[in-house]
Amino acid sequence: MAIITLLTDFGLRDHFVGAMKGVILSINADPVIVDITHLIPPQDIFSGAFTLGQACFYYPLGTIHVAIVDPGVGSGRKALVATAGGHYFIAPDNGILTYLMGQEDFAAYQITADHYFRKPVSATFHGRDIFAPIAAWLSRGIPIQQLGTVEKNPVRLDNPELKRVRDNLFQGAILSVDQFGNLITNLKPADVPRSAKIILSGKREIKSFYFAYAEGAPGEAFVIEGSTGYLEIAVKNGSAAALLNLKPGDPIGVITM
Amino acid sequence: MAIITLLTDFGLRDHFVGAMKGVILSINADPVIVDITHLIPPQDIFSGAFTLGQACFYYPLGTIHVAIVDPGVGSGRKALVATAGGHYFIAPDNGILTYLMGQEDFAAYQITADHYFRKPVSATFHGRDIFAPIAAWLSRGIPIQQLGTVEKNPVRLDNPELKRVRDNLFQGAILSVDQFGNLITNLKPADVPRSAKIILSGKREIKSFYFAYAEGAPGEAFVIEGSTGYLEIAVKNGSAAALLNLKPGDPIGVITM
Amino acid sequence: MAIITLLTDFGLRDHFVGAMKGVILSINADPVIVDITHLIPPQDIFSGAFTLGQACFYYPLGTIHVAIVDPGVGSGRKALVATAGGHYFIAPDNGILTYLMGQEDFAAYQITADHYFRKPVSATFHGRDIFAPIAAWLSRGIPIQQLGTVEKNPVRLDNPELKRVRDNLFQGAILSVDQFGNLITNLKPADVPRSAKIILSGKREIKSFYFAYAEGAPGEAFVIEGSTGYLEIAVKNGSAAALLNLKPGDPIGVITM
Repeated sequence: MAIITLLTDFGLRDHFVGAMKGVILSINADPVIVDITHLIPPQDIFSGAFTLGQACFYYPLGTIHVAIVDPGVGSGRKALVATAGGHYFIAPDNGILTYLMGQEDFAAYQITADHYFRKPVSATFHGRDIFAPIAAWLSRGIPIQQLGTVEKNPVRLDNPELKRVRDNLFQGAILSVDQFGNLITNLKPADVPRSAKIILSGKREIKSFYFAYAEGAPGEAFVIEGSTGYLEIAVKNGSAAALLNLKPGDPIGVITM
Repeated sequence: MAIITLLTDFGLRDHFVGAMKGVILSINADPVIVDITHLIPPQDIFSGAFTLGQACFYYPLGTIHVAIVDPGVGSGRKALVATAGGHYFIAPDNGILTYLMGQEDFAAYQITADHYFRKPVSATFHGRDIFAPIAAWLSRGIPIQQLGTVEKNPVRLDNPELKRVRDNLFQGAILSVDQFGNLITNLKPADVPRSAKIILSGKREIKSFYFAYAEGAPGEAFVIEGSTGYLEIAVKNGSAAALLNLKPGDPIGVITM
Repeated sequence: MAIITLLTDFGLRDHFVGAMKGVILSINADPVIVDITHLIPPQDIFSGAFTLGQACFYYPLGTIHVAIVDPGVGSGRKALVATAGGHYFIAPDNGILTYLMGQEDFAAYQITADHYFRKPVSATFHGRDIFAPIAAWLSRGIPIQQLGTVEKNPVRLDNPELKRVRDNLFQGAILSVDQFGNLITNLKPADVPRSAKIILSGKREIKSFYFAYAEGAPGEAFVIEGSTGYLEIAVKNGSAAALLNLKPGDPIGVITM
């Protein structure tokens, strides 16, 4: 049985997601449809890309992932169907697939098979009119090559990378803030020895590295190896984002010694 | 395989939706249960009716839609099962089915078959005790005529209609605000020539008509043909509702020339 | 077909829930996965326990319920698989199963079968690495006794009980506030005769007992028998929590006469 996941910034209040699921089920009544999230902040392509990359590969091979954060809907931006890691992806060509492009088998196709679209195609809701029907037809076994033509240069976001500033000073960034207020950085555990300090703006420093959230003292910010593979800044039973007033994109420093 | 959709104002924090799904699955383990939304504003029947009307007909024929915004629960208000457009609807009789009543095959029945109810029936949660079990039994093939008796005068909401105020001045209204802050009006594209102006309170005017959101200049409010079939007022990468301080029910004017 | 329900404080914005569902579907593609809620307030074990208790037993016998509010993740706290009322439960050992412990067939096992875990096991996301795979393997028919060893003293929360203060004065508490602002108390209808008064702080009293929400006068707080089996304090078309400024844990008095 095919699995189709959905990740969008459409929210949960409107008819958008319900309409997309109806379109899918009208073409293929069989797939399991799973919501990854619909609460990507409006138009935040990076957040969509990061969240997609964190969730998609836990699904079985062959899963079809529909990812829509689409401020360019109705304009000239292309629509893509892609393969990566043995999974399928359907998305606007705006960088939301960035975190999958490192997969060896990554290949993208510009969707051109408009006979599969819902007609008339609106200028504002390609989720319903293009992406949902393409996902449903793909789940029915239409080969990806019949849905479009090879796209050699899909849009790729600049990945926030760790930069060496001085001999023992690196600059990183906050990638994401989760539901609990944990700050997910772009630092990998191997990049940061336990003797290092994390430097925030305003001369604030974090020196504690813990294994479990529960080790923190009340109100203490500390570093922990998160489940994403990145280091996080966290506060036990509290929000590091609120305590430290940090948000995605904010820079952080690392001093190694 | 039967499909049952759910649309409520029950929210996503409490046990309400989970209890309803358990009741359904205890009667019929087979149906696909799909959430349209549970974030209709509390007691906002019009919003429920509008959202239901925008989502329901994208589903396959025979789908069972449960729609519950029910401030009158436990009082004398009737419960309905209805057919419209080849779909089934289960809802309190308070106008939430208004947008379906124009369908040629619309027919409503007052639910009376209380041997299908969960017992004891609470006075505050008919979603669990009446609507969910009726949906589940309907999905098992019980004919609609066995669930109730014909209801000839179901409650119908006043539809906000376009009114001619003067020769070239019409009054419309904001129907809904979506996740992105787009203002969905009750104006159809055919009603409003591209040479028209939209008039808001405080002498504000909107003259730009665009095809895609991306055409807007930063901070500019413009009119666009939305995916709902109505004109919307939008701002590129921003919220028109916040910029213009408008909400559902607010009047707007249209000057044609 | 097995049913697996999920109740967590993971929220709906991040990859957490999507990752868990992917792990489950990778082990067993067949189960129906149902979200009870993911909006338990962060780290609020009591709220998780209460909501789980209100939803779980509406599901068919044999349903597997995964309940995760887990501030102790990665520390020494145990992980449990339990049976209660003919259902299965998978959860951290922190009291979240409290409301099920009264069931005659309640039995708990500490999860020890780490060959079923996802490897490497992170210190911060046992939902993905332990609880989801255990649920999936249980749904495939692995006997519960093969997942762990008997746990005789699982953590149990103190249940807010009704206390007699004086002859005709009892002290109760607010257990929960629902989506509509209704205040769910720990008072059972049999405990409180209709001639009683509910006493709030600041000498405020509530004397009206109604059957349906619609009976309330505008802005009037009243008592109603809720669908949870407890008395609620409610306001027609409004929020009793906002009107009375009360929250979970706040005490209330009952004067019987």
